[in-house]
Amino acid sequence: MQKNKHSQSVSLRPAATLPAGFRAAGVVAGLKASGAPDMAMFFSDVPAILAGTFTQNQVRAAPVKLDARRLAEYGMAHGVVVNSGQANACTGAQGVRDAKEAAATAAAALGVAPALFLVCSTGVIGKPLDMGKIRSGIAKLAPALSPKGGEAAARGIMTTDTRPKRWTATFTVEGKPCRLTGIAKGAGMIEPNMATMLAFLMTDALVDRAAMQKVLSSAVSGSFNCISIDGDQSTNDTVLMFANGCAGNEKKLRPGHPDWSSFVSALEQVTAKLAEDMVRDGEGAKKLIRLELDGAKSAADARAAIRAIGNSLLIKTSWAGTRANWGRIMDALGYSAAKVEESRVDISYNDLPAVRGGMAAETPDAKLSAILAKNEFTINIHLHLGRHSARLLTCDCTEEYVAINKV
Amino acid sequence: MQKNKHSQSVSLRPAATLPAGFRAAGVVAGLKASGAPDMAMFFSDVPAILAGTFTQNQVRAAPVKLDARRLAEYGMAHGVVVNSGQANACTGAQGVRDAKEAAATAAAALGVAPALFLVCSTGVIGKPLDMGKIRSGIAKLAPALSPKGGEAAARGIMTTDTRPKRWTATFTVEGKPCRLTGIAKGAGMIEPNMATMLAFLMTDALVDRAAMQKVLSSAVSGSFNCISIDGDQSTNDTVLMFANGCAGNEKKLRPGHPDWSSFVSALEQVTAKLAEDMVRDGEGAKKLIRLELDGAKSAADARAAIRAIGNSLLIKTSWAGTRANWGRIMDALGYSAAKVEESRVDISYNDLPAVRGGMAAETPDAKLSAILAKNEFTINIHLHLGRHSARLLTCDCTEEYVAINKV
Repeated sequence: MQKNKHSQSVSLRPAATLPAGFRAAGVVAGLKASGAPDMAMFFSDVPAILAGTFTQNQVRAAPVKLDARRLAEYGMAHGVVVNSGQANACTGAQGVRDAKEAAATAAAALGVAPALFLVCSTGVIGKPLDMGKIRSGIAKLAPALSPKGGEAAARGIMTTDTRPKRWTATFTVEGKPCRLTGIAKGAGMIEPNMATMLAFLMTDALVDRAAMQKVLSSAVSGSFNCISIDGDQSTNDTVLMFANGCAGNEKKLRPGHPDWSSFVSALEQVTAKLAEDMVRDGEGAKKLIRLELDGAKSAADARAAIRAIGNSLLIKTSWAGTRANWGRIMDALGYSAAKVEESRVDISYNDLPAVRGGMAAETPDAKLSAILAKNEFTINIHLHLGRHSARLLTCDCTEEYVAINKV
Repeated sequence: MQKNKHSQSVSLRPAATLPAGFRAAGVVAGLKASGAPDMAMFFSDVPAILAGTFTQNQVRAAPVKLDARRLAEYGMAHGVVVNSGQANACTGAQGVRDAKEAAATAAAALGVAPALFLVCSTGVIGKPLDMGKIRSGIAKLAPALSPKGGEAAARGIMTTDTRPKRWTATFTVEGKPCRLTGIAKGAGMIEPNMATMLAFLMTDALVDRAAMQKVLSSAVSGSFNCISIDGDQSTNDTVLMFANGCAGNEKKLRPGHPDWSSFVSALEQVTAKLAEDMVRDGEGAKKLIRLELDGAKSAADARAAIRAIGNSLLIKTSWAGTRANWGRIMDALGYSAAKVEESRVDISYNDLPAVRGGMAAETPDAKLSAILAKNEFTINIHLHLGRHSARLLTCDCTEEYVAINKV
């Protein structure tokens, strides 16, 4: 997570208050057997500048392919229609046709150009979209769009999320009040297949497109890409950001603009909070663990070492217990691709030394166990081999995770 | 697992019958709070030719360091003393001194040179060995050594293993009956820390040392290195092989010897069976899954792709359920380091097609679910990008795994 020097100029609330010119809705389309809301729409009354980041998975869902192409071709959009329950992944040419048709249906309902609508899906892999339900869902969504619809939309994109994830930042640009609102769903699934993360960011500030894409990529690297729930990267992961300029600032926000840093700060804070919410609401998770790794020989080593820890099943299950099994961290460091020298490694839990020079420190086990009993703690690992660092937010792995995912 | 062309000349039994000239024992030394057997010894009456393979982890336990050095320096040994309950890992210089002292104590009790004894440990990381208990355990082990002690030793090295793992192969060399016996412990832990595999192989055949090391490395690659329980590689993993020549063959076994292939076959069969036993007895595991991946562009790609599947928590938990969630396999292939083209991928369960060309095949879900309900099945993945293959034996991940490991 990035540290932020300008937070004083940004205020942040856990709310889905939409920026000016945006409307949203969430409805029940019948894709989920449970009858829970399963479709949502985000819409800007004027075409908005668009930025986005997508899964790096070689297997990409049809909507990911469509959105990535439209982002590259048009760089702007009016809105996005989202469904849960079906991922529209591994569905071949039919899947791409279905995604296009969903976008076109939504665009027609709102009277905008079909190319300016995007689609996101999350749910079961390998089944063609139920287009009948998608069409009737869109028919319900379009008239339901409302400036107050953020909360309903946040619920419409949930899968096994137990609560909606939304944050609103307010700040000023050229003296004018602006909002940046983020709505996301975390690692969860309604039907057995994939833990997909989707995030939608909307701002009424006027922003330069290239600058927005760059700062979005950087904010995603520092937030959504610094969390790990089970180490599986979905076919559908998507972050989309819309800026519609309705706040009325005259100069486009870009580096050099006096309020650029407020905008960046708002974006970083909203993405960081959404990412943290995802980990807190990870499937079966009871604890939030902040991993801080320093002293790696290279940036790649820092990432490899911290990922080895965050993805280790043995370590994640141990966090579900009550003992600081730091031996498992030493073990994971040792088999990671990072250069590690056993005798240099220090490990601390909430700043209490557990390992010094690769061996047990003096801290009594009971003190470390008291930290493990908390529902949030920090583990700092120092390799003492160089100047590179990495951070990762992760969670424990409980029996409940297994129960959720073995369906 | 390797296919074997010469199995007709080798007979195999799930037994710990020791080869001529070997003795073994297992005792309770008090290292485990449970009072279960926790020390074992394997001993050859004459010095035996030695081969070995060790964990590739950068963090290596003291006994691993000692044994690797002795293997390189002397290439022979009389025996090995094994303890469970304490790993003697992350114990610094004291750990190496303790391992040496344990070896010297065992050697003195048997009247052999201290340098010809080895040590293996498995258990909690980071606590110094309880040398008082180790010494008194050795004092019990030495007089208990017996040609019939294989079974007791197999039990003495168990941790969370639920049953002993031992296989005896018989074959002939120059017309003389020979045995090759393997005794192993699998992924399990007595105290919360590490899932360590240890395997001890003994044969009374006379074998060329360099040839034995080479064939052992190859057999380990095809067996113990082709299994995955939770993807964590221990600090203590060790395979040791002793050949004492007591069977009386005159020419050393090496490539070109008429009975070389029988010996190789015996070794491959014993290691394959022990590896399979480890997976079947994996912590909390209820199912054995044989992963077969073909058509990778390179050998490294084949390994990366099959490991991504075998180590995916989402996939392993899905196997604990009753549905063929092949979407998770597509997903893992996509994020693996291997080159994958979605539209070329085929996946079958017990030869029933689930995916053809990256999309759902015609097989009804119910037929695939029936395969998932079995306690053993094969998943074949074909990437259709090249000629490289990989095999992996793995298991499901159940709530019980979490319960065992969160202590």
